[in-house]
Amino acid sequence: MSSEAPAYRRMSVEARRRQLLSAAVDLFGHRRPEDVSVDDVASAAGVSRPLVYRYFPGGKQQLYEAAVHGAAQELIGRFAVPSEGPPTQRLAGALDRYLAYVDEHDAAYGALLRGGSVAETIRTDAIVDEVRRRAAEQVLHHLGVTGAGPRLAMMVRSWIASVEAVSLIWLDEGKQPPVSELRAWLVDQFTGLLLVTATGDPETAEAAARALELETADSPAGALVRRLAPLAPAVTALLE
Amino acid sequence: MSSEAPAYRRMSVEARRRQLLSAAVDLFGHRRPEDVSVDDVASAAGVSRPLVYRYFPGGKQQLYEAAVHGAAQELIGRFAVPSEGPPTQRLAGALDRYLAYVDEHDAAYGALLRGGSVAETIRTDAIVDEVRRRAAEQVLHHLGVTGAGPRLAMMVRSWIASVEAVSLIWLDEGKQPPVSELRAWLVDQFTGLLLVTATGDPETAEAAARALELETADSPAGALVRRLAPLAPAVTALLE
Repeated sequence: MSSEAPAYRRMSVEARRRQLLSAAVDLFGHRRPEDVSVDDVASAAGVSRPLVYRYFPGGKQQLYEAAVHGAAQELIGRFAVPSEGPPTQRLAGALDRYLAYVDEHDAAYGALLRGGSVAETIRTDAIVDEVRRRAAEQVLHHLGVTGAGPRLAMMVRSWIASVEAVSLIWLDEGKQPPVSELRAWLVDQFTGLLLVTATGDPETAEAAARALELETADSPAGALVRRLAPLAPAVTALLE
Repeated sequence: MSSEAPAYRRMSVEARRRQLLSAAVDLFGHRRPEDVSVDDVASAAGVSRPLVYRYFPGGKQQLYEAAVHGAAQELIGRFAVPSEGPPTQRLAGALDRYLAYVDEHDAAYGALLRGGSVAETIRTDAIVDEVRRRAAEQVLHHLGVTGAGPRLAMMVRSWIASVEAVSLIWLDEGKQPPVSELRAWLVDQFTGLLLVTATGDPETAEAAARALELETADSPAGALVRRLAPLAPAVTALLE
């Protein structure tokens, strides 16, 4: 980007701000916050350090928070998939987009969710919570639920926590297994969680029944049921 | 404790250290680290501030880390349940003990796991990771597994992340639902997760088969299967 700097000379205030932010997002996305300086941002954008401070008087902390905010908007956007097809297929689509983000911005994702970063603040915590809240809303939307009761809401948040934990472990383990396997397994986790929760909560039972009607033999849920079938004898033996 | 201070005058070094630590654990267990001072610890133990510093030259940070270490040992201990009976019954026993800790030490548990605390350090992060690692070991032990492969290990860590997330949500929601319902639901989550993961991973499939053989009609797994039975028609419809 620095080679293009001369062309940016007469940038508008807004365009310059976006350019600096884009450089910051890129840097924070690939390094831990500790390893990014205002000088790095200035150099990546091909501008002087004082110019960065003119746009971001709060320096690195302000750039970091703005970058986190941008990353959060991006992550939230990835959960938005069309309301058509079997719910587990929609979930697979959203997870593909989410995990692609984790893959592309591994350092940022790790720093954001692991917490304990020196650049972490109550404000960035609130942004992470907002991503979780919006992700939960999307999942509930595809289950046809608005204003979920406590158990169903807790179920979705529990699953999102699993997605985050599994994503972090996946990064730790050198991105193994392949992302498509990880995604399929996380969708299966959701299906399993929905069914076991349905056995104890009427609202979840209704949501599960609605979801099952939209599933097909070749949806992720259909594939899971086929793979579960051989376990049926050992499981139903417990009924006796 | 301060009323007993005179009796502690001729305490041994080790006894005094334990007394100060116990006061610290108690304080950090019920307040956020930000809201605990060395003076509070001194006053709770009925000793002077300089005496606290003589035993803990690192002051509040050292007391906090020692308290976190003590809490971690306590949490790790709660996962140790006898290797007898159906695995889901053992898991229920361990969770009862774990959730009792969450209930009794709510502020400490929240501060420890939420991260972002001012007193948080890489050392306390490592302690939290150690609790997770030991909890995972215990769960795998009850599944008859040593040296778990990547998918089974990831499954157990994913479940532990859910337990933590659900515990934090439970604290946020004023400890609703009752702890026994929460525990039963978390055990059901585990059973569901084990079964769906078994469909794609041979090692997990073997562990699940071994576990199912030890389960009974009146174990938590047996009760779950009975509650799942009415869902069978809608689920098996996907096979066609």
